Amino acid sequence: MISSSESLQNLIRELSGLPGIGNKSAARLAYYLADAPKEKVKLLVDSINKVSKNIKRCKVCFTFSDDDVCGICSDDRRDKTKIMVVENERDMLAYENIGEYKGVYHVLGGALSPLLGIGPNELKIKELMARLSDNIDEVIIATNSSIEGETTATYIAKLIKPLNIKVTRIASGVPVGGDIENVDDVTLMRAYNGRQMI
Amino acid sequence: MISSSESLQNLIRELSGLPGIGNKSAARLAYYLADAPKEKVKLLVDSINKVSKNIKRCKVCFTFSDDDVCGICSDDRRDKTKIMVVENERDMLAYENIGEYKGVYHVLGGALSPLLGIGPNELKIKELMARLSDNIDEVIIATNSSIEGETTATYIAKLIKPLNIKVTRIASGVPVGGDIENVDDVTLMRAYNGRQMI
Repeated sequence: MISSSESLQNLIRELSGLPGIGNKSAARLAYYLADAPKEKVKLLVDSINKVSKNIKRCKVCFTFSDDDVCGICSDDRRDKTKIMVVENERDMLAYENIGEYKGVYHVLGGALSPLLGIGPNELKIKELMARLSDNIDEVIIATNSSIEGETTATYIAKLIKPLNIKVTRIASGVPVGGDIENVDDVTLMRAYNGRQMI
Repeated sequence: MISSSESLQNLIRELSGLPGIGNKSAARLAYYLADAPKEKVKLLVDSINKVSKNIKRCKVCFTFSDDDVCGICSDDRRDKTKIMVVENERDMLAYENIGEYKGVYHVLGGALSPLLGIGPNELKIKELMARLSDNIDEVIIATNSSIEGETTATYIAKLIKPLNIKVTRIASGVPVGGDIENVDDVTLMRAYNGRQMI
């Protein structure tokens, strides 16, 4: 990328390193930021800094949180007898957006993948097992319907079954091989409503 | 958007206000930034701050610049006898990327549009005329091939013709109604090479 300004060129390079941002989007964003009111840019920069400096992982469900326990785990209105197991925070957000699920979550931090060297110890599976007490009615496994997600679902289901806790898997509404975060809300709701015993 | 963290939610809202960034891309970027190494985020934030605080307009061609005169206008290797007139900095960058043009630029800051109330005084047309001296061999009008861009091209050509300076218009390679910044490099090079007298 060639530019009339070195600082703009640097910014374009930094922006094009972000996920889903190509060279042209990066240039478009950089020129937008160069022209945008300084107060607006300050708001954006402050938000980035706040997240980067202060964000932690919730001690209970391991999603991103401002405090030791996240806003969902510490919310009294959430049904603590149901735990939905997801691969990452983005999948969790996708479920939150449909507004149908009122339980809590558990973020694994990925899915089992022997090829990538991700075994049970690389995921928050031990931590999930530690959460399962008499008060848990149902564990909903909402990992992706990829090979890794299915393997992870089967693995976790086998671990939980001896504990006599109901284990369910989201229904076939989620397209096979697709990522939960890109699924439309209606399909996601169908997947949630049609969950099956495994 | 519902999130387990207020600061993340704020960041997602700020990001989704940027051009070309929808809700899902904003969430993806926010989670990426939350998880990214702090030094990497600092580099990004520093680049944004540098651009937002220090960027100015080149006194000669009115593109973004770190100094009073931009890197292209102050480059001795550029052919100062040719001026390419573009609507904005992104179009200028698109031409720079093909590496074919060795002259200098003039950024109008838009195109004539009676509907939007953009007349000649809203664009850097007076400033372009002030640059036209005996030493200018050619003015290449590279505004978009939209109605506004064509109108602007015709308007400027009429102003320059009495000065006996060659005025050219980029060729038909640019798709009618399209934006220059989204055109592929080959088409753009053909458009440049096939420019015609107007």
